[in-house]
Amino acid sequence: MKHVAVILSGCGVYDGAEIHESVLTLLHLEQQHATYQCFAPDTMQHHVINHVTGEASNEQRNVLIEAARIARGQIKPLSALQVDDFDAVILPGGFGAAKNLSDFAFAGAKAEVLPELKQHLSRFIAAKKPLGFICIAPAMIPRLFDSRVSLTIGMDQDTADHITTMGGQHINCRVQDIVVDHAAKVVSTPAYMLAQSVLEASSGIEKLVHAVLELAE
Amino acid sequence: MKHVAVILSGCGVYDGAEIHESVLTLLHLEQQHATYQCFAPDTMQHHVINHVTGEASNEQRNVLIEAARIARGQIKPLSALQVDDFDAVILPGGFGAAKNLSDFAFAGAKAEVLPELKQHLSRFIAAKKPLGFICIAPAMIPRLFDSRVSLTIGMDQDTADHITTMGGQHINCRVQDIVVDHAAKVVSTPAYMLAQSVLEASSGIEKLVHAVLELAE
Repeated sequence: MKHVAVILSGCGVYDGAEIHESVLTLLHLEQQHATYQCFAPDTMQHHVINHVTGEASNEQRNVLIEAARIARGQIKPLSALQVDDFDAVILPGGFGAAKNLSDFAFAGAKAEVLPELKQHLSRFIAAKKPLGFICIAPAMIPRLFDSRVSLTIGMDQDTADHITTMGGQHINCRVQDIVVDHAAKVVSTPAYMLAQSVLEASSGIEKLVHAVLELAE
Repeated sequence: MKHVAVILSGCGVYDGAEIHESVLTLLHLEQQHATYQCFAPDTMQHHVINHVTGEASNEQRNVLIEAARIARGQIKPLSALQVDDFDAVILPGGFGAAKNLSDFAFAGAKAEVLPELKQHLSRFIAAKKPLGFICIAPAMIPRLFDSRVSLTIGMDQDTADHITTMGGQHINCRVQDIVVDHAAKVVSTPAYMLAQSVLEASSGIEKLVHAVLELAE
């Protein structure tokens, strides 16, 4: 049975992990007979967004503590992630991937990945274990590899241009589909970069989970 | 196409709407070709629980604003709910149902339902439209009906005893199953009162959505 690390970035599309994508990732891992453990960095969120108004509030919240809501408390700090314990890693999207796990939302093509996360993902890459990236999370991929890795964030030209500048090979992709780079063992899917419904997000995430588990053979 | 009101109680199992149950409700509504609109009361949460430690924090959060995280911002205040616009209503669980939508978590058999919610649900009942209750949310049912309605919260004897005292007819039920009261048009399922996985919660919620939509014929 494959065991997968799922890395969350908070709880809520505008300042954390996209909730539907996160739950669908766990659901599809279970449906495909894999087990998982959720992780999140024990750091403060970039900011807190009121999800009714879309405006920043003056609160401060911790990424790990908020992500624990999605994981029903069953979560560990990213510092506890041991690559040897897992067959693969999956990162759901949401702005948390571009605000808390990286600064892509603000820095675009000059974005950097949270050093602690980059270190952990580099170990998965060195161990030739597969990585799955959902929604905007694939924008981190060029910062993790020296080679030009194929990936998708859907169809958005501006975002794709930033990724090309960073050294990635962006491939346009429908919401139901995935892009697989077999050499790098990297899978990506657009999910809510394009999805108009939970069902649309689910279809791509189901395929991503399948491809990640297959690459972990 | 059936249109269903989904009433959320925050965002997170220990102080709000259970996130998996909420997302699975939306997923199964879409899979069964129904549309939906999320609602939540524009009130303050009873409290805020740190989902890593399980302890109360000294923050204050609004039920509607937090529930908007699950709904990706597509949510309306409960005050805007018009019974004529909908064929049915579903309430996911989580402690929010027993702390924010009612006080069952603290008052047990003496619990009362949030008056604004009781008023809206009474209109659905008067219009003979079906109601679905997930997890601990069914504990509100005896306060909504004069008759003895059949319902389940799973197998927990203490909780079942409170519900019996309140005037409900509790029926033990496995996580994969539902209890249907055809006369009252009320469906309930245990979900995370018993579920050990997302998949287990999903199986009962899928059946609940199916039964609610069938009763809405």
